[in-house]
Amino acid sequence: MLEIGYNKRLEMQLDFIIEIDKIKNILRKTKLFDGNRFENDAEHSWTICIMALLLKEYSNFSVNIERIIEMLLVHDIVEIDAGDTFLYSVERKNALEKEEIAAERIFGLLEKDQKEYFIKLWNEFEKKETNEAKFASVFDRLEPIMQNYITEGYTWRNNNINYDMVIKNNIHIKEGSKEIWEFVLKLLDKAVDKGYLIK
Amino acid sequence: MLEIGYNKRLEMQLDFIIEIDKIKNILRKTKLFDGNRFENDAEHSWTICIMALLLKEYSNFSVNIERIIEMLLVHDIVEIDAGDTFLYSVERKNALEKEEIAAERIFGLLEKDQKEYFIKLWNEFEKKETNEAKFASVFDRLEPIMQNYITEGYTWRNNNINYDMVIKNNIHIKEGSKEIWEFVLKLLDKAVDKGYLIK
Repeated sequence: MLEIGYNKRLEMQLDFIIEIDKIKNILRKTKLFDGNRFENDAEHSWTICIMALLLKEYSNFSVNIERIIEMLLVHDIVEIDAGDTFLYSVERKNALEKEEIAAERIFGLLEKDQKEYFIKLWNEFEKKETNEAKFASVFDRLEPIMQNYITEGYTWRNNNINYDMVIKNNIHIKEGSKEIWEFVLKLLDKAVDKGYLIK
Repeated sequence: MLEIGYNKRLEMQLDFIIEIDKIKNILRKTKLFDGNRFENDAEHSWTICIMALLLKEYSNFSVNIERIIEMLLVHDIVEIDAGDTFLYSVERKNALEKEEIAAERIFGLLEKDQKEYFIKLWNEFEKKETNEAKFASVFDRLEPIMQNYITEGYTWRNNNINYDMVIKNNIHIKEGSKEIWEFVLKLLDKAVDKGYLIK
């Protein structure tokens, strides 16, 4: 808390920035491309924002890239309270309720207009109904697949994840980008060939 | 390197994503708000992107927020080769040449259209001539000031940085946001009162 006592709204906003810094201690299940340590949520968010910017030409639709990057910037903030739930775990279904409570608390540190703005952004990403949310979701899934490939299947092998599970849990990449999904299929075939992933 | 051999352009783009992951090992001179460790460039970039989104109402001008966030996402990528130069060090002046070589190499991993796009974005940020670059720069400077305040002047005290040096090296915040600069002045006064910064 800053407690400067000048411009209350700005101070609330900056206190929010301090609070969400905790995301840098939320570790994911996949490692950095160099394999040296697990990635945290802030790092993951940065990478997928750049991915969206770099790869927007592969979207199935004409999309608003600003909206996509805004969603990707904030999509994991709820994990400060709710933690990172592994894509393939059974707890995945129960995570949403915890995340909704987290969104209320964390975005509730802001004044009403901004709280509502960020909750709407987060909800849009979670529901994956808009074209922007579908395309944003491509990168949330593509990064860990690439990380697994580069680290010789580290997270897949350590959690007994097989080819069919990867397909089933990531096939909605196709909803955002057919071209990127085709690339992913080629990458997964090569991962099987190299023994990083069991078919 | 992925070496999938399907869609060369997409593969070059994804190899670029793998290369820039090295930014996560470039440590800054300031610590996270919890004081536990130094921040890396990817984490810093994520935070200042959210700051720009959250605080756009304080810009001196009407600005294109998408352009600002794009600049902030990529502004430190050159440090993968050039390293992080401390704001207050004498090497700061010589950093630009190293950074230009770095930009050529790293953005040169992309095809010409995207290489040029990213170099233009990075140059715009560095030159601080456009309204967007001026406002983007506010957050690049505001975050470490806040980190110093919250960590009781950690980086200031360890590097003999005094009040006048902080003012001199950060006063261009005013060019982007008079309101945020006023806030910073109040924060620095309080930092002096608390003994985090010497006047």
